[in-house]
Amino acid sequence: MSTAAFDQLHRHQRETHVLASINSCLYWDQNTAMPLDGAAWRGEQLAWVAQQIHSRQTGARYGELLAAAEAGLGQLPPDDQADWQQNLALLRQQYERQCRLDPALVNALAGARARGYSLWQDARRNRDFSTFAPALEELIRLRLEQVRQLAEPRSPWETLAQPFEPDVGHQRLEELFAPLRQRLPALVERVRGRPRRAMPQWTTGQAVQRSLCEQLLACWGFDERRCVLASSPHPFSTNLGPRDFRITSRTLVQQPLSAFMATAHEWGHSLYDQGLPGQESPCFGWPLAAPTSMGVHESQSLFWENRVARGRAFSQVWSPRFAEAVGAAPWGDADGLWMAMNPLDPGLIRVEAGELSYCLHILLRYELETDLLEHNMPVAELPEHWCAHMARYLDITPDHVSEGCLQDVHWSEGLFGYFPSYALGHLISAQLTEAMEAEIGPVETHVAAGGESRLLSWLRRRVHPLGRRVNGEQLVQQVTGGSLSAAPFLRYLEAKLDRLLAVAPR
Amino acid sequence: MSTAAFDQLHRHQRETHVLASINSCLYWDQNTAMPLDGAAWRGEQLAWVAQQIHSRQTGARYGELLAAAEAGLGQLPPDDQADWQQNLALLRQQYERQCRLDPALVNALAGARARGYSLWQDARRNRDFSTFAPALEELIRLRLEQVRQLAEPRSPWETLAQPFEPDVGHQRLEELFAPLRQRLPALVERVRGRPRRAMPQWTTGQAVQRSLCEQLLACWGFDERRCVLASSPHPFSTNLGPRDFRITSRTLVQQPLSAFMATAHEWGHSLYDQGLPGQESPCFGWPLAAPTSMGVHESQSLFWENRVARGRAFSQVWSPRFAEAVGAAPWGDADGLWMAMNPLDPGLIRVEAGELSYCLHILLRYELETDLLEHNMPVAELPEHWCAHMARYLDITPDHVSEGCLQDVHWSEGLFGYFPSYALGHLISAQLTEAMEAEIGPVETHVAAGGESRLLSWLRRRVHPLGRRVNGEQLVQQVTGGSLSAAPFLRYLEAKLDRLLAVAPR
Repeated sequence: MSTAAFDQLHRHQRETHVLASINSCLYWDQNTAMPLDGAAWRGEQLAWVAQQIHSRQTGARYGELLAAAEAGLGQLPPDDQADWQQNLALLRQQYERQCRLDPALVNALAGARARGYSLWQDARRNRDFSTFAPALEELIRLRLEQVRQLAEPRSPWETLAQPFEPDVGHQRLEELFAPLRQRLPALVERVRGRPRRAMPQWTTGQAVQRSLCEQLLACWGFDERRCVLASSPHPFSTNLGPRDFRITSRTLVQQPLSAFMATAHEWGHSLYDQGLPGQESPCFGWPLAAPTSMGVHESQSLFWENRVARGRAFSQVWSPRFAEAVGAAPWGDADGLWMAMNPLDPGLIRVEAGELSYCLHILLRYELETDLLEHNMPVAELPEHWCAHMARYLDITPDHVSEGCLQDVHWSEGLFGYFPSYALGHLISAQLTEAMEAEIGPVETHVAAGGESRLLSWLRRRVHPLGRRVNGEQLVQQVTGGSLSAAPFLRYLEAKLDRLLAVAPR
Repeated sequence: MSTAAFDQLHRHQRETHVLASINSCLYWDQNTAMPLDGAAWRGEQLAWVAQQIHSRQTGARYGELLAAAEAGLGQLPPDDQADWQQNLALLRQQYERQCRLDPALVNALAGARARGYSLWQDARRNRDFSTFAPALEELIRLRLEQVRQLAEPRSPWETLAQPFEPDVGHQRLEELFAPLRQRLPALVERVRGRPRRAMPQWTTGQAVQRSLCEQLLACWGFDERRCVLASSPHPFSTNLGPRDFRITSRTLVQQPLSAFMATAHEWGHSLYDQGLPGQESPCFGWPLAAPTSMGVHESQSLFWENRVARGRAFSQVWSPRFAEAVGAAPWGDADGLWMAMNPLDPGLIRVEAGELSYCLHILLRYELETDLLEHNMPVAELPEHWCAHMARYLDITPDHVSEGCLQDVHWSEGLFGYFPSYALGHLISAQLTEAMEAEIGPVETHVAAGGESRLLSWLRRRVHPLGRRVNGEQLVQQVTGGSLSAAPFLRYLEAKLDRLLAVAPR
């Protein structure tokens, strides 16, 4: 960038980036180290930073910087103009969205979120939906008011989904999800009726699980000069700076594969972040260097978790390593470990669901939140509709609301429009993997040869650098040459199911 | 506080406090978790926060808030006026000091500090003073310019010492330190000539050391809801919020008592911070709730490290605990552990020095930095004068500058005037302990009975709440009824030496 206006905006963006990364540090510490009683003060710190970021992103000075840069666009070298035009357009879009919102609404939402989260925790603990229902009603009311203020040419649910999955709408989701709705229940049913090996039960202590996670990361390119693995109540991935990547896992002694799979998943998120345009890119700190969408982000974590770690070749390689670390092999042979890594039976809890039923959990949530926001479904009826959907999709029924509509945190924080990204991640992952395999051969072949770095190279070349240049659908189109569809995912799932069910019962 | 001006300043102070605690979080993470490559970005984050704090503390708006509050002082309830007058006077003093400094000098100093630290690291690694000397000359030049701008009625060294030890001057230090200078070398000599038991050599792994540190903290009132122990390359203590206290230690396998003693020391610092006026005090976030001085802070860490953990009773209680944790007792009986905890022979390195020679290390530094700042001692002569002082006070000579004048970090960051606080800490600790023992009986009696909480109660009642209401000397006067002096420290040291030397050689 050569003009003064651009330089000023560039400095502004970089400072906002510094500030956002301070927020990440506070969040990281809160979830990995902070003692319990630190929470209230941490809240004040986070609120202060949030207020600074908000005022930077909505203030008159920022509007002026943005307008000046837009006016100076023509003075940039012609080759750079398309990128900077897109950067500025994305900033403009975000700026206008923020500016359209009444600060009183923003405050009211922050308060309602905090109350909603707290009441949800109580309600879930007590298995009592009625204590949470009024908070959810208030959150829906405020979010609909937000939709009214944003005044976009989209439906309310679509408007709220934009920050997670740009340009996504009901119609497209319907095209993508209809095949899932149609065929996944039959696959779930198919599993239910087939004999399989008995699943081994085993437990493993924290040190062993931690060691296996570290072995996994070492194989998958973890560099301790720029990466950290820690423990937290809920696994997550974050960046504290352009060369400072952090992930967490949690150890459940009764579920010896849980920390391992969570590590694979979060490391996938981190690898995507690490592959985005970095400090060496002129776009660093600008929208084009940001992640494409939540669905694409999820596709990257799911690739490493499901396509690599839950593959049969992986179990072949890792069964001896697990046996060495655990000191025994209660799972039996490598296929026993493979089966343990691929639980098939549908359960009530989304975060424990396998690849087969996961998207059904999402469909149910997507449909219910659309009903709440767009079809006047009374909040009081949510538990009943939840059970009905559950019965239809998965043929199981929660015993109580805490296993049902209170299991997820999202709605308690007024987060609507997010769930589909989880399902899109599965679809995108499958479609990208088909393209990858067409170019460099089967994932499993590379895994069997310890060549995961070749998989990463492909992602680093074809997927990661695109950033926000494209939305999720455009990314798939650009990388695979075809439109996003559920077909690759269903193909993959059916083939994997055949192979899993073929593992002879013992 | 009832007036609007006070309320506004109060909010300003609280926000500055929030911001300062964000800085602490960044520092904590940097030293406990951050990967190496995160350093550059962390530098940007820290610089941003520092700039925000600086502009809050020197801006015109702050000056107006301060002046308005000063003008409104008379409207406060009469009972509150003395406290708020002192709070405002301390803020005013700090504000005027900041305002007198040319921002160009502040920037130049920040740059010179960073360069000095970096060159010092190189010089120390290469045992080559000449690479660091020009940076030290520049730091001295800039600090003398700072003294000129501050224009206080004090000598240059005294001016620079104010932030650490308010109101301290050469004359008073001379009165306090002369007895040390006179009598400590003789005590060191006395040790050298006496037969003692052979010191046991042993090593202990990280987990065992960590477990012993945790046992120690549990005995000394550690509350995991508000406190954290972590590892870092250099032990330190910090607060990330009013109910969020952190300390670190480091494990040296070859020095099995090092982590333990560092934990005792840092926990003493933390206990002092925890006992300062907290959120329930109207002065929270104001100067009166801040620590008295660095010397007083050090007196608290030294109390727990030296008076409690290095006491004979402590070894009696802890020798079985150590044996249980280590799985053996290479130190022999409890007195063997006591001797291991009290190395007497003088060494070259300050941070490894025992109680006997520690203050001599400080005298040497205090004298040399005074010579550098006030008596035109050429920087090039520092190594030679260092050796001469070392020979005079401790009768030993460094083999190279990295064991000599390059061993401490302070001067490389332009930090002059800090060292005496370390020695004052020993004096204050001894004098406070005499007062404590006169009131509640011998420290050792409480330790023998597992009654450390009674020691803490006394400190919580008599010492901690005073905060910046008093300077270090006033605190001693107020608590003990006598002027600060070296006599209690020398009395204590001589008595302890008698007891240590009386432990029969085996």
